[in-house]
Amino acid sequence: MSRAVLLRLVGVGDVSKRILLGRKLRSSQLGETLLPKRIALPVFASDALSSVAYAPDEVFIMLSLAGAAQYVWSWKIAIAVALVMAAVIASYRQTVHAYPSGGGDYEVATVNLGVNAGTTVASALLVDYVLTVAVSISSGAQYAASAIPVLSGHEAVFGSVLVVVLMAMNLRGIRESGTFFAVPTYLFMVAILGMCLFGLVRLALGTLPDVESAGLSITPEPGLDGPLTTFALLFLLARAFSSGCAALTGVEAISNGVPAFTRPKSKNAATTLLLLGVIAITMMVSVIVLARQMGIRYVDPHDLDRLTRNGEPLPEGYDQHTVIAQIADAVFNNFPPGFYLVVSVTGVILVLAANTAFNGFPVLGSILAQDGYAPRALGSRGDRLAYSNGIVFLAVMAIILILAFDAQVTRLIQLYIVGVFVSFNLSQLGMIRHWTRHLASERDPAKRAHMIRSRVINAIGLTFTAVVLVIVLVTKFLEGAWITILAMLFFYALMKGIKGHYDKVAEELAADDEDKVMPTRVHAIVLVSKLHKPTLRALAFAKATRPNVLEGVYVATDSDATNRLLEEWDERRMDVPLKVLHSPYRELIRPIVEYATEIRKANPRGVVAVYIPEYVVGRWWEQLLHNQTALRLKGRLLFTPGVMVTSVPYQLRSSEIARERELREDTRVRPGDLRRGNVDERSERSDRQVPR
Amino acid sequence: MSRAVLLRLVGVGDVSKRILLGRKLRSSQLGETLLPKRIALPVFASDALSSVAYAPDEVFIMLSLAGAAQYVWSWKIAIAVALVMAAVIASYRQTVHAYPSGGGDYEVATVNLGVNAGTTVASALLVDYVLTVAVSISSGAQYAASAIPVLSGHEAVFGSVLVVVLMAMNLRGIRESGTFFAVPTYLFMVAILGMCLFGLVRLALGTLPDVESAGLSITPEPGLDGPLTTFALLFLLARAFSSGCAALTGVEAISNGVPAFTRPKSKNAATTLLLLGVIAITMMVSVIVLARQMGIRYVDPHDLDRLTRNGEPLPEGYDQHTVIAQIADAVFNNFPPGFYLVVSVTGVILVLAANTAFNGFPVLGSILAQDGYAPRALGSRGDRLAYSNGIVFLAVMAIILILAFDAQVTRLIQLYIVGVFVSFNLSQLGMIRHWTRHLASERDPAKRAHMIRSRVINAIGLTFTAVVLVIVLVTKFLEGAWITILAMLFFYALMKGIKGHYDKVAEELAADDEDKVMPTRVHAIVLVSKLHKPTLRALAFAKATRPNVLEGVYVATDSDATNRLLEEWDERRMDVPLKVLHSPYRELIRPIVEYATEIRKANPRGVVAVYIPEYVVGRWWEQLLHNQTALRLKGRLLFTPGVMVTSVPYQLRSSEIARERELREDTRVRPGDLRRGNVDERSERSDRQVPR
Repeated sequence: MSRAVLLRLVGVGDVSKRILLGRKLRSSQLGETLLPKRIALPVFASDALSSVAYAPDEVFIMLSLAGAAQYVWSWKIAIAVALVMAAVIASYRQTVHAYPSGGGDYEVATVNLGVNAGTTVASALLVDYVLTVAVSISSGAQYAASAIPVLSGHEAVFGSVLVVVLMAMNLRGIRESGTFFAVPTYLFMVAILGMCLFGLVRLALGTLPDVESAGLSITPEPGLDGPLTTFALLFLLARAFSSGCAALTGVEAISNGVPAFTRPKSKNAATTLLLLGVIAITMMVSVIVLARQMGIRYVDPHDLDRLTRNGEPLPEGYDQHTVIAQIADAVFNNFPPGFYLVVSVTGVILVLAANTAFNGFPVLGSILAQDGYAPRALGSRGDRLAYSNGIVFLAVMAIILILAFDAQVTRLIQLYIVGVFVSFNLSQLGMIRHWTRHLASERDPAKRAHMIRSRVINAIGLTFTAVVLVIVLVTKFLEGAWITILAMLFFYALMKGIKGHYDKVAEELAADDEDKVMPTRVHAIVLVSKLHKPTLRALAFAKATRPNVLEGVYVATDSDATNRLLEEWDERRMDVPLKVLHSPYRELIRPIVEYATEIRKANPRGVVAVYIPEYVVGRWWEQLLHNQTALRLKGRLLFTPGVMVTSVPYQLRSSEIARERELREDTRVRPGDLRRGNVDERSERSDRQVPR
Repeated sequence: MSRAVLLRLVGVGDVSKRILLGRKLRSSQLGETLLPKRIALPVFASDALSSVAYAPDEVFIMLSLAGAAQYVWSWKIAIAVALVMAAVIASYRQTVHAYPSGGGDYEVATVNLGVNAGTTVASALLVDYVLTVAVSISSGAQYAASAIPVLSGHEAVFGSVLVVVLMAMNLRGIRESGTFFAVPTYLFMVAILGMCLFGLVRLALGTLPDVESAGLSITPEPGLDGPLTTFALLFLLARAFSSGCAALTGVEAISNGVPAFTRPKSKNAATTLLLLGVIAITMMVSVIVLARQMGIRYVDPHDLDRLTRNGEPLPEGYDQHTVIAQIADAVFNNFPPGFYLVVSVTGVILVLAANTAFNGFPVLGSILAQDGYAPRALGSRGDRLAYSNGIVFLAVMAIILILAFDAQVTRLIQLYIVGVFVSFNLSQLGMIRHWTRHLASERDPAKRAHMIRSRVINAIGLTFTAVVLVIVLVTKFLEGAWITILAMLFFYALMKGIKGHYDKVAEELAADDEDKVMPTRVHAIVLVSKLHKPTLRALAFAKATRPNVLEGVYVATDSDATNRLLEEWDERRMDVPLKVLHSPYRELIRPIVEYATEIRKANPRGVVAVYIPEYVVGRWWEQLLHNQTALRLKGRLLFTPGVMVTSVPYQLRSSEIARERELREDTRVRPGDLRRGNVDERSERSDRQVPR
């Protein structure tokens, strides 16, 4: 699909028509096109931008611990967070140039700091994916409760249901298209920036109304109610700042998605990153400033009794709406659709952000699998089972967190940021090493100057993120960050263990010269259960391989059936001898395994070729009714040295069904395809005829 | 093991010592010995005898609907039930002589009345197994609650837990020995018969005390409180009688177990059946007579408010104990251990009866599988998965019933008896046909006389059971028997469907002469992922089969790895060409399948032999980390015509673990082994060395 078509797709009029009509992109339309910046931005931005939905709230909550008076600090904290974000964005712009392969922080850390650092980053990212789902969905549930009051009080259950829906969609495979992200993300930007602009205009005109909570007072926490000591104030500001840093989560996503950009990939990715940074900073600062101007009073939603009006406690059942919801409600006070638009697109963008994790998780899994840190099956795109297990794992962990923390964003945030900043730090440190290493060999002064500049940018980035990591650890360790660190340690140990196992196996498998010795003779046995087409085919195929010895083998569990078979064998004048193994207790597997072992023992330098006739059926319930014994027998024979096991399939008519199902399966989209640039000609295959 | 040893085992002194010391029979001790009558009786009797624990209660409950005055009928109903039981026992004595192979009612019905009748019997038996578990465990839970008051009110949960424990034991495989059944069953007989004898002696001496409920009055149900019309009385008696017929459940077990008896098998089985009948009838009649003499007042446990004392309702929390518990409590009024012995062995025998179903279910499954009415995997003794599925299914269905009916025996009984009597009837009818058929050809007057006598006995049996079936249907259809009939219809349709499918497949597979045509050439491809031992072995094995073409095939997903492999291939001077298939999207399966399809297309009369090197590991978690792709590839290739798939295994050191586990698995006892005479030399194998 050409760029022009994509442009048309995101034209707003067209887009809204498509939403209304519910028409879907035909899969083949997307073709092999990579993502232009205007599509890449929404694809990768939802996670980073969505944090504006909860980061300002967390800043106000933390400051409110010492009462509303501390809100004077809010815009200063916003500036500090913006500064850190700017530094991080600048740093990642260096990364996308230096590592365009999409390995992101994991690759940077592994290449420059070694496998232990890489594994640490991977553990941090794994934990973060779980938390991205938990936090985004919990916040989304709060927005849903703002718009639909009946959900209020059932956020955890509603959030869990949302996660299950996301899981089901990703298990099924959703064909992510640019529009899928573009429509809600651009709508979200328009809604939030429009709201802020409108608010700032009304501020300039002097008509800016107050938010609903403006008249309230906040009782400070015990111990923070008097004048604060310098230390207490600093600690309070540090806590607010580190919660505000939740706004930075997700900015690293683009560095994992460089291969999906149109050429020049790195340059486009860097530009998109800059754009993302500007938009995110603008949104966050505007929201915080506006909220402060409109007199917000915002406390931990589970501490509502600290809010009072004229010294009286608030009525039972008072609902504290999120900061953005309060601003939208007041700014658009004569225009309810404005409020509903802001709240609903915010909810949607949060769900999209959660979906990001469902996409990123298998991508990371496949990179880890290629390096031997995760089960190898995750590395092959086609392995549905491995993908599914990853998706279900992610969903289950997220639901556990949502239920355990009762969908309270404020408590989940305490777990969230530490993982993000661990990988930020290792990644920046790795980048500094990267430039230093390249400077050692680079002689071109222009390139050297560029590298030195990049190294300075990464060093600044590291300084900022290191400070934040320390602040986060100090302020949040006991509040929940310890859980994240434990989880990271667990994943770290698991990945190391898997790697160790693969290394040990590789060592045991390493070839030496005697392995090329050819067996001296082949003794072929064809398993016979009946004299039907599959058996005849297996006999014919086995004969075609011209073994030294060929015989049919029958396990006799019943003398009548044995006699019938022997008669038929004679009648049909089979030119292969039939060996009958007696099994009085109706065991089928053991007599065959023992017979194969005997043959091998008689001729240790030969090989026993066991031919198993199998007929293949197509429907799942048919598969339950057939071949269970063949399957188990194959499993057992694999453990018998000197034996090779050949399945000779005979396709029944119904097997067509399974073949077609497998083909459909192959052409199905896997989570993460879009952001890996994997939107390829596979999509077209679903229109092709099933090959015969 | 000789008969003398077995005798010693059940000598009471020895037995109790073994219980105390907990010493287990070594498996090899049991050897190939079949069951003598004194062991066979307890092995097969627990189901039939255990019904004395609830059948009398049900008679009293039904009569109490019209008030305690109707208890005058109780001993007459007992006699009627005893008569039916005598007729049924006499009938089955004919069956065990005529059908000594252990097929039981299913075989009799199939052979004499055709497959539809056989399938009907099988459906009835399947449903009955579920109900045996549900009823026995529910009744056992009531006994447990008599002895352990804290369980009272939680019978359903306790019963479900019991079922889960039984399921786990059967999944694990319990080595049933004669003692396993002999000790509790003989204890049960001693306890119940002893209690009855003691009671009757005290009755003769005039010192028989009343049971605890003797002083109570029973308010009749509305509509049954005045003098009864003849019709109402008849209906009441019919209901009580059909509930009492629950005592007959389980008498058919011996007819399924003839092969397990010592020779002469049929004669011994017939004698054991007679013994069983005498004991069961004695117990049931004694309990009912004694209960009546001791003034029992017994109502549906969920209608306790119909019991009053001097016109006053009973205190809240009154616990109605089962009939046997009340008799034991009163008879042994100065000797509490007597009460506890009776109640606890009754509980144990009920659990044993439930276990009978766990044994009978797989046996029936394997017979059905051999005839094509159940998944074939059930027919092979070794298939653990199939066995496990059957056991889990049985347990889940039983738990559903227990929970749905709140462990109320009275309500479950309504479902129980209809299935039993359906198979009784078809079986008797089949026997009459059997004798008639044999009489047509038999000329020996002595034998003819014997056959005619047998046919009369079966005709009497049929008459009785037909009358009971009609009574059961009339009195219980709306009370729950419709559920049983629906379930039977479901199983019937399922079995017919499975049979139909197998027949269709067999037809499609029937051989004709062109099937013997040999492929003209063999094109062998060996899949190469790395150049390690398994690959070298696969290449050597493939070469040994001297194919017309032999090549290695490598799927290239990454150019670095591809170059490394090609270099190594040259270095090692491999004398096989290597074909590289490019796969830009890291698919592994599809390129191979497509390549195989192409080769075959180029040479439609040849065959493509795909060799897959596999290394086998032993631990379950290792298996998760390896060979997932090989497994999926094999699955896919089976659907590709003209392809045969050969696994060439390379056994890693840890594979020993799996081999040993499989051997242990083989020597393990499966539910139902003992009663199929399957206690064979397999038991000894566990002492043998693992063969190399």
